[in-house]
Amino acid sequence: MGQKGDKYGAHRVIEPAGVLTQAAWKIDSDMSKNYSNEILVDVISLNIDSSSFTQIKSEAGGDKEKIGAKILEIVSERGKMQNPVTGSGGMLIGKIACLGEDLSDRDLKVGDKIATLVSLSLTPLKIDEITAIHSDIDRVDIKGQAILFESGIYAKLPDDMSEALALAALDVAGAPAQTSRLVKEGDSVLVLGAGGKSGILCCYEAMKKAGPKGNVVGMCRSQEDRKKLLENNFCHEVILSDARKPLDVLEKALKANSGKEFDVSISCVNIPSAEMACILPVRDDGVVYFFSMATDFAKAALGAEGVGKDVQMIVGNGYTKNHVDITLAAIRESQALRDIFNAKYI
Amino acid sequence: MGQKGDKYGAHRVIEPAGVLTQAAWKIDSDMSKNYSNEILVDVISLNIDSSSFTQIKSEAGGDKEKIGAKILEIVSERGKMQNPVTGSGGMLIGKIACLGEDLSDRDLKVGDKIATLVSLSLTPLKIDEITAIHSDIDRVDIKGQAILFESGIYAKLPDDMSEALALAALDVAGAPAQTSRLVKEGDSVLVLGAGGKSGILCCYEAMKKAGPKGNVVGMCRSQEDRKKLLENNFCHEVILSDARKPLDVLEKALKANSGKEFDVSISCVNIPSAEMACILPVRDDGVVYFFSMATDFAKAALGAEGVGKDVQMIVGNGYTKNHVDITLAAIRESQALRDIFNAKYI
Repeated sequence: MGQKGDKYGAHRVIEPAGVLTQAAWKIDSDMSKNYSNEILVDVISLNIDSSSFTQIKSEAGGDKEKIGAKILEIVSERGKMQNPVTGSGGMLIGKIACLGEDLSDRDLKVGDKIATLVSLSLTPLKIDEITAIHSDIDRVDIKGQAILFESGIYAKLPDDMSEALALAALDVAGAPAQTSRLVKEGDSVLVLGAGGKSGILCCYEAMKKAGPKGNVVGMCRSQEDRKKLLENNFCHEVILSDARKPLDVLEKALKANSGKEFDVSISCVNIPSAEMACILPVRDDGVVYFFSMATDFAKAALGAEGVGKDVQMIVGNGYTKNHVDITLAAIRESQALRDIFNAKYI
Repeated sequence: MGQKGDKYGAHRVIEPAGVLTQAAWKIDSDMSKNYSNEILVDVISLNIDSSSFTQIKSEAGGDKEKIGAKILEIVSERGKMQNPVTGSGGMLIGKIACLGEDLSDRDLKVGDKIATLVSLSLTPLKIDEITAIHSDIDRVDIKGQAILFESGIYAKLPDDMSEALALAALDVAGAPAQTSRLVKEGDSVLVLGAGGKSGILCCYEAMKKAGPKGNVVGMCRSQEDRKKLLENNFCHEVILSDARKPLDVLEKALKANSGKEFDVSISCVNIPSAEMACILPVRDDGVVYFFSMATDFAKAALGAEGVGKDVQMIVGNGYTKNHVDITLAAIRESQALRDIFNAKYI
């Protein structure tokens, strides 16, 4: 029986000392050490983060052999697939090889197929052999093993939908799950960037939670997205605007909400300087939820102060309890969601 | 009687169109226009933002006449004192000259002395004459006028404490006010950067709200700050650590809380990469409140996901209802706070 490791994986940090595995330069990927609160995974494939894969591909001049050699070099040097230039990782798909005895109450058994929902940039990894490189989808098939720590989150891959569909939805699972938690019956909700992958899922969840007495207004930039959102009943109203023009968003959004300020706004706009467009339309004591990674902390903090808005601004956390279940349930419930995801995101 | 302007001041934006006054290059500082929801202020002095004043002083080679000329040039060109290099503003002190008729229910009368709590970077300003430049404290005395919009926040300067003391406290008024709102009786609270200006105020409020059944733990870097916090009963416990070393903070903080994770953590650490030290010690469903402007949005969002922490992370909003009253009340109540502020921040 192995000894117990740190819940966050700190026992595998080699250098520098005192940091967590994501910030570490090098971590211990010795798969023969059996800590009692780790999960050993037989890896099937790595989904390399897009910016990382693009960098490696360009450095290798597109040559698959060189791409493979670079990946092997990084993983053998660092003990994890964290691109030293971009700092980013990706995720992996694999099968449970061994479940530490402290985790025996998990709903997992040897052989279960999972996707990790924590980054490769913090995941101990050992590659025995690269078996295929799929340059067009940033995917690398390997033989090898990886470790999930006690705190590491993952999803069992469902057998009632394609792997590609499940992965596309799980990629943004935090957003609909947070929406489901934040939105109350009867709320008015503004979703910025409503036509994108996370935006559509947020609208879907907001409609469910706000109910018929609520009012879900989407903002998008194209007439095509507007049509899609309205036809499928993903929003009560959809406005066309540009999140970098806060006054235009404000005017159109209020008009779509009987002139009233919103209870909740959700930012899924992946461009910079969208902060004020999310803050202005919300009422005092309302909630502004930033899911977009393009959000600037200082612009949000100083922006709300500058207009005297006492709103609660929340940093979108990619993890929320039951986020996998909530997101896959939405995909299962809605044929329209499945059709859109299959057409656009696979 | 004047017409009604936009609540956020958009009616005074000259260029570019569609943005708010802070993002605008040039705004309208015509003081003869009387909008019914504006406040006209006779300005006494400008407290120029420190990075802005340093830039101007350096460009002027320290020459006061050139500093004055540069300030006049900026204000006449842009209609506001927003340094085009740093983008920053500052705040002003003045007396109410005229209160628009739509704001007659405000607790203000002509002649009241106020400090603006919105930035000079969004405040219409006209300077008739610069009467003194105090280079050592980034302060410029002027004759001139400014406009506060309907959404613009301000504080009436109290007559029971020095102007300098009131301004030092109001500078960070959002932090103790948010603390007062977040912390519940019996909560365990971790304050990082507890020895600084906002940190001390947060500890003071957290002790009041958590009460004797709560546990307020401060983290600071110097033995001197630790002593000060404990002697004055601003914390139950104080640990010495470095916010860039999350595992050290985690270990010491949990030890100071009977091994339990915290209900709330508050970041007042003004250095980068303190996000994980704030996130790790907090329990699932707990609250992480980032007041530090050095916070990085992506590091917070991805960091919590990487360790599977379902915590609510809040962007510190400089404005909260009653933040002036809450902060000045703390200064009035506590002789120890007054002594520390008078010694260190004036």
